[in-house]
Amino acid sequence: MSKKKIIAAINKYQRFLITAHINPDGDAIGSELALGNALRQMGKEVTICNRDEVPASYRFLPGVEQIKLPHEINSYFEVLIVLDCGHIDRVGAFTCSDFKLVINIDHHYTNQAFGDINWIRPQAPCAGKLVFELISGLPVEITREIATCVYTALMTDTGCFCYSNTTAGSFQLASKLVRCGADSAEIAREVYETMSLAKIRLLGESLKTLEFFEDGAVASMMVSQRMLDDCGAQPADTEDFVNYPRGIQVVKVALFWREVAPDSYKISLRSKTDVDVAALAEKFNGGGHFHAAGCRIEGDFEVVKQEVVQELKKALAELPPS
Amino acid sequence: MSKKKIIAAINKYQRFLITAHINPDGDAIGSELALGNALRQMGKEVTICNRDEVPASYRFLPGVEQIKLPHEINSYFEVLIVLDCGHIDRVGAFTCSDFKLVINIDHHYTNQAFGDINWIRPQAPCAGKLVFELISGLPVEITREIATCVYTALMTDTGCFCYSNTTAGSFQLASKLVRCGADSAEIAREVYETMSLAKIRLLGESLKTLEFFEDGAVASMMVSQRMLDDCGAQPADTEDFVNYPRGIQVVKVALFWREVAPDSYKISLRSKTDVDVAALAEKFNGGGHFHAAGCRIEGDFEVVKQEVVQELKKALAELPPS
Repeated sequence: MSKKKIIAAINKYQRFLITAHINPDGDAIGSELALGNALRQMGKEVTICNRDEVPASYRFLPGVEQIKLPHEINSYFEVLIVLDCGHIDRVGAFTCSDFKLVINIDHHYTNQAFGDINWIRPQAPCAGKLVFELISGLPVEITREIATCVYTALMTDTGCFCYSNTTAGSFQLASKLVRCGADSAEIAREVYETMSLAKIRLLGESLKTLEFFEDGAVASMMVSQRMLDDCGAQPADTEDFVNYPRGIQVVKVALFWREVAPDSYKISLRSKTDVDVAALAEKFNGGGHFHAAGCRIEGDFEVVKQEVVQELKKALAELPPS
Repeated sequence: MSKKKIIAAINKYQRFLITAHINPDGDAIGSELALGNALRQMGKEVTICNRDEVPASYRFLPGVEQIKLPHEINSYFEVLIVLDCGHIDRVGAFTCSDFKLVINIDHHYTNQAFGDINWIRPQAPCAGKLVFELISGLPVEITREIATCVYTALMTDTGCFCYSNTTAGSFQLASKLVRCGADSAEIAREVYETMSLAKIRLLGESLKTLEFFEDGAVASMMVSQRMLDDCGAQPADTEDFVNYPRGIQVVKVALFWREVAPDSYKISLRSKTDVDVAALAEKFNGGGHFHAAGCRIEGDFEVVKQEVVQELKKALAELPPS
């Protein structure tokens, strides 16, 4: 039903602004570019704009040079399309009241249904899958460019088909996208093999901060501003660092902390068990998915770390004995 | 043709020994177990035996407890089936003359066709795909166990669908295997998220040895016996370490060295360009695939490293200007 309404709105209006969440990732950017490409094929006027810049590892995406920052746009748009974003606050650049219509397409189960039309499918592995389904209902060609963008969304949000959101349908979609021209190895190379020496050095430093709690059920790793400076690394270099504590056998919940300002930390949470880290992140005004979430916490590192660990201790204690 | 001959041989004979290459990996072990399961469903007597033990990360595979070491078997077998192995020497435990028939199923383009029946398909992403095609032609059920083993072969040999051997058909197969009961996330967890703290420590140490040659086109990283001892780590812990130098943006060829004895090194080679590392590995009595190969070299580390780097320098110089 929602998809039909969205198609009707796309046919009705002419001027579209597409956006996604702050600190956009592969799913956000891939989804935006795929949808933008399709709407332009239909002769629509489309601008894509995010609060934050495109990380280096996604700058290979076809059409990426068209993505703007908020200060670069001053036109009027009829429709705002928000992709891969659970709360309108997480867009960080636009408010719903400035548009005739807001379309919300997302796969976060914590989505607040803030749009006039809301198409929320928590079972979708990525927002890109919904965008692909939408595009398949539009009078456009699935170009190599669209396939590349959707494949990037799918690959990154399923962690290379390793996360539990991966389904038979995910592989079916991947197969279709490769047939439409997506070069899976090339995309993986662009996204994952663009490590800088600075990042490798930072990883070595960060690995030294590994700590364990609750008999190893919780692992925590961090990167300070000073470590970033010493290694000449960028915040985006730490994007996958949470996978190191997550990858340790006995670990059930992994935490990765990045210092964003003095006494201010961005935390990535990953659960390998029945602990809902989205629920935990929400307690600290964050959000996400059951097994992968994030939030921001202010305070002394040792103090806030203990707070989060205490919450996790409670959550782990509530699990049924395995 | 070869597949038909293999099916005829399976129907004709009763006692099978299945083996694969030394230091068996996910493709070797997954292929062996899948084929063993299928032949047993047909009422055949099957023994699986490798020269080396199953690494810890593959011990979750259904049926793995049936895999034997050479000293544990003393029966007579009519047929030897060799999987995922280019040279009979790389089996390391059996010779062809001890069997009525040798069947060779492989996807290495350097395969020496040493069998009585040779089914060699270099375009297959893994030996497991050939085994799956074979099983699909046998009167057996594709059980959840078979699907799990073949999925493990596919996932590990395509590097989570990131290597250039990944095709639309690979994803099609993955989709089919998930529908047959393979739990892709669970398998990825078993294979990749069984890192020990010792391995993480070893990674930190090994990252310090990163060196670059040819303006960064070649990156080399190593692990010494002493580092293994100091970290309490196992040789198998280094299996994916070559992906760190490989993952650096400017790198075209990555080397990872593991000291196996004083002045004796096992090298993993990875190419991200048109340099054929299998050809290079063959110069040092190794082998493998165009983009991923291995060999063993004796000598002082600094001396043999320079030898390999010189060979790579020549190979890089022969590339057309990009």
